[in-house]
Amino acid sequence: MAFDEQEIRAVHSNWIEAVNAGDLARLLALMAEDVVFFSPGQAPFGREAFSSHFMAACQQMLFCCTSELEEVVVVGEVAYTRSRDALSMTPRAGGKAAQFAGHRMTVYRKQADGRWVLSRDAHSLVAVD
Amino acid sequence: MAFDEQEIRAVHSNWIEAVNAGDLARLLALMAEDVVFFSPGQAPFGREAFSSHFMAACQQMLFCCTSELEEVVVVGEVAYTRSRDALSMTPRAGGKAAQFAGHRMTVYRKQADGRWVLSRDAHSLVAVD
Repeated sequence: MAFDEQEIRAVHSNWIEAVNAGDLARLLALMAEDVVFFSPGQAPFGREAFSSHFMAACQQMLFCCTSELEEVVVVGEVAYTRSRDALSMTPRAGGKAAQFAGHRMTVYRKQADGRWVLSRDAHSLVAVD
Repeated sequence: MAFDEQEIRAVHSNWIEAVNAGDLARLLALMAEDVVFFSPGQAPFGREAFSSHFMAACQQMLFCCTSELEEVVVVGEVAYTRSRDALSMTPRAGGKAAQFAGHRMTVYRKQADGRWVLSRDAHSLVAVD
């Protein structure tokens, strides 16, 4: 496997681990300054809205996210991936976990220092029983 | 504006016109062989499923789609765009139109002959009143 693909797979794994650890600082280090997230039924949002939503959610919920990469395409300094994702959010106060499932398309950019960062991310996850 | 960005903007306009005209052949010419579409709550799908769903929908509905490009980023032979989209689907048999609104992230690839084609497309459109 080519070096860049290995690097992107590592960023993908690192991202999921950081989500599950509630580690916002680690997530911010993995995303571009101009990152944009697309979510069904929401306006696109960037770093600041991601940070505030993620911190608020982590105070209320325990996240358990799994993500299986189905495709990694590298073209020069851009890459795009497809993954199959599942997310459960369990209230810290107790109660039934909310379950979400779907897919995710992510665009990565290679930085001047060679690091790959998440640049655009759109998911199709919806609530499931 | 750079030539490639002009080309991508033309493909984007052409795509929306073809959707509204119910012109599947024109849409197929604008998409890559390995195109993948991501839609909230659905498994990702390619050319064949797009074709059958689009033809079935066109038999039942009149489409009116609008799409405003908010961003075009070209990096070598890959580009990605963000657009704000709205779609109304009016039953040919009469009745109230269904309205959808949201955003769309599209990845384009430059072909060997210089043409840009739609390669990956994820939208966040949901039903609105």
